[in-house]
Amino acid sequence: MSLAELETPCLLLDETKLEHNITRMHEHLATFNVPLRPHVKTPKCLEVVRKSLASQPGGITVSTLKEADVFVQHGITDILYAVSMVPSKLPHVAKLQAVGATITVVVDSVPAAEQLASGCAERDLTLPVLIEIDSDGHRAGIQPDDHEALLAVAHALDASPQLHLKGVMTHAGESYHCASPSAITTFARKEQDAVRHAATVLREAGLTCEVVSVGSTPTAQLGEGFDGITEVRAGVFVFYDLVMAGLGVCQVNDVALSVLTTVIGHQAHKNWILTDGGWLSLSRDRGTSKQTVDYGYGLVCDIDGKPLEDLIVSDASQEHGIITNRSGQNIDINQFPIGTRLRILPNHACATAAAHPAYQVLQEGQVKDTWKRFGFW
Amino acid sequence: MSLAELETPCLLLDETKLEHNITRMHEHLATFNVPLRPHVKTPKCLEVVRKSLASQPGGITVSTLKEADVFVQHGITDILYAVSMVPSKLPHVAKLQAVGATITVVVDSVPAAEQLASGCAERDLTLPVLIEIDSDGHRAGIQPDDHEALLAVAHALDASPQLHLKGVMTHAGESYHCASPSAITTFARKEQDAVRHAATVLREAGLTCEVVSVGSTPTAQLGEGFDGITEVRAGVFVFYDLVMAGLGVCQVNDVALSVLTTVIGHQAHKNWILTDGGWLSLSRDRGTSKQTVDYGYGLVCDIDGKPLEDLIVSDASQEHGIITNRSGQNIDINQFPIGTRLRILPNHACATAAAHPAYQVLQEGQVKDTWKRFGFW
Repeated sequence: MSLAELETPCLLLDETKLEHNITRMHEHLATFNVPLRPHVKTPKCLEVVRKSLASQPGGITVSTLKEADVFVQHGITDILYAVSMVPSKLPHVAKLQAVGATITVVVDSVPAAEQLASGCAERDLTLPVLIEIDSDGHRAGIQPDDHEALLAVAHALDASPQLHLKGVMTHAGESYHCASPSAITTFARKEQDAVRHAATVLREAGLTCEVVSVGSTPTAQLGEGFDGITEVRAGVFVFYDLVMAGLGVCQVNDVALSVLTTVIGHQAHKNWILTDGGWLSLSRDRGTSKQTVDYGYGLVCDIDGKPLEDLIVSDASQEHGIITNRSGQNIDINQFPIGTRLRILPNHACATAAAHPAYQVLQEGQVKDTWKRFGFW
Repeated sequence: MSLAELETPCLLLDETKLEHNITRMHEHLATFNVPLRPHVKTPKCLEVVRKSLASQPGGITVSTLKEADVFVQHGITDILYAVSMVPSKLPHVAKLQAVGATITVVVDSVPAAEQLASGCAERDLTLPVLIEIDSDGHRAGIQPDDHEALLAVAHALDASPQLHLKGVMTHAGESYHCASPSAITTFARKEQDAVRHAATVLREAGLTCEVVSVGSTPTAQLGEGFDGITEVRAGVFVFYDLVMAGLGVCQVNDVALSVLTTVIGHQAHKNWILTDGGWLSLSRDRGTSKQTVDYGYGLVCDIDGKPLEDLIVSDASQEHGIITNRSGQNIDINQFPIGTRLRILPNHACATAAAHPAYQVLQEGQVKDTWKRFGFW
């Protein structure tokens, strides 16, 4: 099927770029002999995750238990649920265990560990647990220098017959705000140091620490060393996006995902092209707004995926996109008559993909397959 | 079922507030003897739309043909597709006509009208058409004072045996940026004037103009007069949201929609509460960011829906929300132990609702039903 036959808006996935991105990450991590535990929150798609598991141990990272449900159904059972665990989610975890899943969960405080221990005791569940370390002030986790807090959580886990302390993990989410690729490489060292240090503290206290897990796409792709790190988690690398290109983690040409739209009108006196790609299909993510190049709601490409220099979706309603020239130049409206197909590269692949039910998979510019994705909780 | 039994995050709909909001809009428009053609893009839910159609003529407004598919299946067949029509969508429209729908479409230029005429001729379709007027520079449409353009489009439609000029429509989207309720009332007059004037121009040229359609929630709810207006379109009024409260179109207490979340941790040294309500469940919409009160990603309420003064979701990752105090006061973390349920009021109901597969419908604080919603195209 050709792109002209698709109803718009819809989500396109360039399979060649997808495979290139996955290979690049695999090869980078292979250099350091560290395996990948792909984060499935970006693709939420069996076919994509199978590709990113090729030559890897087979475990995945999830951000929701719904993701676990779907992948367990398809035989992927080694799962790290990378959001702090609370007892109200134990019935769901129990169902996953009952169908053969190993769900490793995360805590970062004594109250969380104690609540989890008593919740598991009530339900006669046992769970492997990682302690989250806050390597960069981004979100959750114990401060890397707070040995007392770390050991208190570890001992609270150790005191429970239900909970098995498996190790430590961290997520360098602040790496999305680094100023240069070399700053990301430095940031990756800080991320690794935080969990290496925590692992040492645990081991010196006679506690177990099999797993030493780091991850974010920037620090995975541009990180080096990885000594003592047992796994790397990353999600967005499969597709990449404009935010990653802005960080220098990939090139704009590597972005595998785009939203196919149709020109539905013009406001010639304002140099506007209107399309049917509004924020519902592009997402409201404005991740490039604080980067050197602000792409609005996305960078405009022709139907073949070639960027049209300086054309961006500068504003969006629910089902309308407004394309303007970023540098204020006039647009030759005649080049974009009503019906013209345009592809929009996303700021943030996770958010844009989440707006769609499926990927239209492209090979050499033709739609060769449709891969379902799922959403929700 | 009680709220404590729901798995989080999930979307709550307070049925009493929903009904109050719908009654308020119905009563307001009844004062002016003008009917409502509800915009279903906000709820995308049969039960909600049926309530908003009570005592109204029965026609709806859609932003996607998928919305039309679903509502036609359920017997709602008078449909205005309020996004400029392009020929590539005619096969879909033809399918809808084949199952009994009347799909009225919108154009705003001669090329659009001509493309539509030849597309309909090829497929032997006939279509009712409205001409879109740009009453406020917001998006699509012919400038209200451009009689020449208006008549050119009207004549292009009139020249086609396939196309039936039914009238004119406009959408005062810029009313979302008004500074006060009285400014919205003034803006509504401008919106109405634009289409009343266009209708006069068409009629004086001997052309038909049965439909004179206006709409946006602010100008529908606070508009007055409506002389010569044949229908009003509005969507977000069913739920309302923080943006509408910021505009003075409703009170915060009217907001019928909230996202139920669970406290999953704290960063006490930073006065942060962490929840499992991230941007995937709240949406990336930052609609209040330019209003007097910026609610971040949403206003925090207790489990009963009572706003907790000054607590907002100030930052969000995909599945993590960070709650802070808007005015920088310390938060008493002990009041919000892990497992606490909190409800987040949305900036923009359309975007937040779109993140969820269903509404958990509340009456007197209990979940009495689940209403499905649908998405995509």
